[in-house]
Amino acid sequence: MKIYDYEGFPNPIRVRIALAEKGLTEKVEFISVDVPNGEHRKPAFRAKNPSGAVPVLELEDGTTIAECTAITEYLDHLDGEPSLTGRTPKERANIHMMQRRAEAGLLDAVATYFHHATPGLGPNIETYQCAEWGEHQRKSATDGMRYLNDVLADQPYLAGEAFSVADITAYAGLIFADFAKVPVPEECGNLIAWRERIGARPSING
Amino acid sequence: MKIYDYEGFPNPIRVRIALAEKGLTEKVEFISVDVPNGEHRKPAFRAKNPSGAVPVLELEDGTTIAECTAITEYLDHLDGEPSLTGRTPKERANIHMMQRRAEAGLLDAVATYFHHATPGLGPNIETYQCAEWGEHQRKSATDGMRYLNDVLADQPYLAGEAFSVADITAYAGLIFADFAKVPVPEECGNLIAWRERIGARPSING
Repeated sequence: MKIYDYEGFPNPIRVRIALAEKGLTEKVEFISVDVPNGEHRKPAFRAKNPSGAVPVLELEDGTTIAECTAITEYLDHLDGEPSLTGRTPKERANIHMMQRRAEAGLLDAVATYFHHATPGLGPNIETYQCAEWGEHQRKSATDGMRYLNDVLADQPYLAGEAFSVADITAYAGLIFADFAKVPVPEECGNLIAWRERIGARPSING
Repeated sequence: MKIYDYEGFPNPIRVRIALAEKGLTEKVEFISVDVPNGEHRKPAFRAKNPSGAVPVLELEDGTTIAECTAITEYLDHLDGEPSLTGRTPKERANIHMMQRRAEAGLLDAVATYFHHATPGLGPNIETYQCAEWGEHQRKSATDGMRYLNDVLADQPYLAGEAFSVADITAYAGLIFADFAKVPVPEECGNLIAWRERIGARPSING
């Protein structure tokens, strides 16, 4: 299989962590898309993902899958032993809920701030910006950090006792927050400690 | 199990269709949350869902699950025979991708327009509005309709040959679009025909 992405960007990081967690990194051919120069918005790439975003997974039969959560579903079920998205109905539900909260409340909020209320990837890429909304989403991202910090007061991982795709999404969200200069509030000690533990996993540190 | 919701609103509709598709409606106690009067924003409800949104699923053990996609994962896997979220890794990936596109590109876009660029649910509920972003999302919703129409040129359902949660999300998105007066472009014949077919399903028409 092939992954079209741009190494080091937040959404590509999500899928690369999932690949490493599943031991699949060596089975993938990575194809770099020149996001800083807008290659992801051109027709050739939009044929693979009409949303014009990386990463995209391409299967041997030519099927293309976009959206990190969808790619992770694929990777996690390949071996019939899902370890990132849950096994029982209750695990699946809780992980999906927490993944979505980490995505909407942190990663996507930071992304909206970055692309709308800062120069983002520059005027050729950021062809429409709404600064007021971007600033509002910056506040939402900080609120999101506080919420995740509260969740981690009672449990080691965002969806409970086990690492999951919810942790991957939030971890990538904090990397993006660093890049966009949205600091983690000092009082968020649980989140800061969790981040250190997640960052020490072989899938990230290896 | 219990569902806290408000009948007829778009996100509650999603879960009610999923329940009917799975033959589970009779097993649920529905508890009405007075969304028009802001009950979903009060502490008692936020204890069930910090996001302050309906619907919420409450299990017998008191576990609460928010986010329609997470609730649908739970319901779809209860009988061990997932029929809405896919069985194979490739089915799961494709359905998740299309569900997310229908959500971000249509339903959430209409919701943002409604809550930000119209009076929405009134000044007591809409305590922050960004009209410019709301108007932009109205355009995104129309683009989303055109994209879904294109997808339906080649296949009967949004994720391929079978009905799935992607269709549920888009169907609820069109109901919300009607309510918010965001019309389906006349040239979207595939989407209009699909909507009639979906609306005739016993889970919706029954």
